[in-house]
Amino acid sequence: MASIFPSRRVRRTPFSAGVEAAGVKGYTVYNHMLLPTVFDSLQADCAHLKEHVQVWDVACERQVSIQGPDALRLMKLISPRDMDRMADDQCYYVPTVDHRGGMLNDPVAVKLAADHYWLSLADGDLLQFGLGIAIARGFDVEIVEPDVSPLAVQGPRADDLMARVFGEAVRDIRFFRYKRLAFQGVELVVARSGWSKQGGFEIYVEGSELGMPLWNALFAAGADLNVRAGCPNNIERVESGLLSYGNDMTRENTPYECGLGKFCNSPEDYIGKAALAEQAKNGPARQIRALVIGGEIPPCQDAWPLLADGRQVGQVGSAIHSPEFGVNVAIGMVDRSHWAPGTGMEVETPDGMRPVTVREGFWR
Amino acid sequence: MASIFPSRRVRRTPFSAGVEAAGVKGYTVYNHMLLPTVFDSLQADCAHLKEHVQVWDVACERQVSIQGPDALRLMKLISPRDMDRMADDQCYYVPTVDHRGGMLNDPVAVKLAADHYWLSLADGDLLQFGLGIAIARGFDVEIVEPDVSPLAVQGPRADDLMARVFGEAVRDIRFFRYKRLAFQGVELVVARSGWSKQGGFEIYVEGSELGMPLWNALFAAGADLNVRAGCPNNIERVESGLLSYGNDMTRENTPYECGLGKFCNSPEDYIGKAALAEQAKNGPARQIRALVIGGEIPPCQDAWPLLADGRQVGQVGSAIHSPEFGVNVAIGMVDRSHWAPGTGMEVETPDGMRPVTVREGFWR
Repeated sequence: MASIFPSRRVRRTPFSAGVEAAGVKGYTVYNHMLLPTVFDSLQADCAHLKEHVQVWDVACERQVSIQGPDALRLMKLISPRDMDRMADDQCYYVPTVDHRGGMLNDPVAVKLAADHYWLSLADGDLLQFGLGIAIARGFDVEIVEPDVSPLAVQGPRADDLMARVFGEAVRDIRFFRYKRLAFQGVELVVARSGWSKQGGFEIYVEGSELGMPLWNALFAAGADLNVRAGCPNNIERVESGLLSYGNDMTRENTPYECGLGKFCNSPEDYIGKAALAEQAKNGPARQIRALVIGGEIPPCQDAWPLLADGRQVGQVGSAIHSPEFGVNVAIGMVDRSHWAPGTGMEVETPDGMRPVTVREGFWR
Repeated sequence: MASIFPSRRVRRTPFSAGVEAAGVKGYTVYNHMLLPTVFDSLQADCAHLKEHVQVWDVACERQVSIQGPDALRLMKLISPRDMDRMADDQCYYVPTVDHRGGMLNDPVAVKLAADHYWLSLADGDLLQFGLGIAIARGFDVEIVEPDVSPLAVQGPRADDLMARVFGEAVRDIRFFRYKRLAFQGVELVVARSGWSKQGGFEIYVEGSELGMPLWNALFAAGADLNVRAGCPNNIERVESGLLSYGNDMTRENTPYECGLGKFCNSPEDYIGKAALAEQAKNGPARQIRALVIGGEIPPCQDAWPLLADGRQVGQVGSAIHSPEFGVNVAIGMVDRSHWAPGTGMEVETPDGMRPVTVREGFWR
C-alpha cells in the first residue's frame, strides 16, 4: 500500500508526536486530519483493547462550535432528535439529514451551555451545512472549528487510568454524560463515550498545547496497567455494530435505514422530517444488518453487492475477520425481503463470490 | 511514513486500477477519495511532466452539480465573480467565501446550461454549504455529487495526445473553455485547464464505467509520446504559484489575501461582499508571496512561522526544493510590512531557522 504524502492540508494533531513515537503503522484521513489505524497489527491491537486500556488520538473528530442566541434554533433545525430533552451535561448522538432525509453526518452533540453546542463530527464538513443555513436565515450564531481535539481512553481499565489523572470523579460520569475536570489547571470536558464497546472516555482537549502533556501524563500514570497507544479498531467496531459514516451509510441512506429511527423523535419541523414521515410510519425498505461472510475475504474498499438468485438485494460496507468469533464479521444494508435473521445470500467480493448469512444482531 | 488503511470511506476512483498498475508510490486523501502524489519520484515526475505528457487521476476533484430553475440564483449568492459575464462554454475559477469573507473553497465552476452548473472542488465539502443555503432559502434546485471524475492530461505534448483520442477539435479549445467531445459514443466535457502550467486538459468523465477504457485509450495512443501516469506535482505547482486550499489558504484568509481580488467583481450582493468591501478598497493587510528559503528543508507539514526581528510577520504553507531553479521554492502569507520583493526574513522549520527572501513573483 502506498504511503501518505506529507502536507499541511492533511493536518497533524496535537498528539501526532506521541502517535509517531509509539510506532503507528497505518493512517487514514478524516476531516482533513491524520487518524491512526494500526499500531502493532489489527488483531493484536484488538486483543489488547479488550483486555487493558488504550489512548487514542481521535483529534480528527473535529468540533463544530455553534454559539450564540440562535444556537438552539439552529440545532432544532438540523437535529432529528428532541433537543428540549437534552440535559445540561449530556452528549447526544444526532443523525443529521438533508431535506430528503439523506444522512449528511452522524455527530455527537455536546451541550456546553443553553446557547453553545459542539458537534463532534464523523468524516465530512457538516460545518458548511450549518454555516449555509445560518447565513441564509440570518441567525445570530457563531459557527467555527475551535482548537478542540478529542483524546479517547478506551478499554476495561479506562476508569482506573482516568481516575489517576483526573481524580475519582471520573467513575461517576454516566454514559454519554460529561463532567468538567481539570488537567494542569485547565477544565476539560470529559465524557463517558468513545468508538468501542470496551468502555471508556473521550477528553475534549481544548488547546493544542495541552495535547502532549496530557498524552504523556496518561502513559506515565498507566505503565502498570499496560496502557498502549491505540486507535478505533476496525475488528472491534464491526463486531460491536458501531456504524461508520462513509463506510456503512452515506447521503443515500436515511436514519431509519441505519437503525437510528429512535433518534428521530423531535416534535419540531426539522430539516428532512417531512421526507422521513413515511419511513417513520411504515419502516424502511432496507436496513443495516449484522452479517457473517464465509471463506477468505480481502480488505473491504468498495461497497460489495449482496446477491440472491442473481438479483442485488443490498450491499456490504464493512467486513473483516474476527479472531474472537472465528468468522468474517460484516455490516450490510439489506433489502426487507432478505433481512430476516438466518437468511442466506451471496456477496460479490473482488476475490469472488462468498456465502453470507444474516445474524440476529451484532456480536456485542 | 505510515501507509493508508483501505476502507470504502476513502474512496477509490474509476482510474485506481490504472494508477496501481502504473506503480503509484504515494497517496493523499482529497474529498474522501484517493489522490496519487508520487509515481517515480517527485523530482523525476516533475522533469517528465515538463517535457512529455502525463495522465492524472484527479477524480477527487468532485463535482457539486447545481441544477434547476434557481441554479443561477444560488450561484450568484455564493460566487464573488460576476456570473452574468460567463460564456456558455466557460470554466470560472471562483473563490467561495462565508459571510465574513473567509474562503471556504476555490472551485472551478463549469457552465453546462443556463440552469446547470458544476463546481469542481478543492478539498472540502462545499456541497454542504450550497445545500444548507438552498434548503434554508427554499430554492428550487437539485444539489448532488454526480458520477463525474476528472482525468487530466498535462504536459507540452498534451494537445498531440488528446487530438489522437478526441480528434483535432481539441486544439481549438481556448484556456478555461470547454467542448463536448465523444469517447466511445459518449459526449464528455473536455476543458483546457489543469493544475499545472505545462498546458493540457481536464476530461470530465461522466460515468465510472468509462474510466479505465479512456485511461487505456490514452496510454495506447501515446506510447510514442512517452506518456506516463502522473499527478499534480508539488514542485511544479509551487514553482507555478498554483495555490492549494488547506495548504496556502484556509477559512482564515480572504480572496484578496490570496491575490484573487480580480475574481471578486460581482455586482450582486453575494455572501461575504460587505465583509470584503474594506479590502476591496484598501487592499489586504497580508498577502500570498513567492518566497525563496535557504538551506535544507524538511517536508512542509505545518504552517511554518515567518519571523523578522523575533516578531511573526506571516507563515509558509508550502515549500519544496526545485531542481530546475536550484532553490527551495515556497508559498507564504506575508504581512504588508514585509511583502516587498527582496525583503529578508527567517522561517522557523522543524529542523531550525532558515533565511527567506521575498520574490517579485512565481517562477512561471
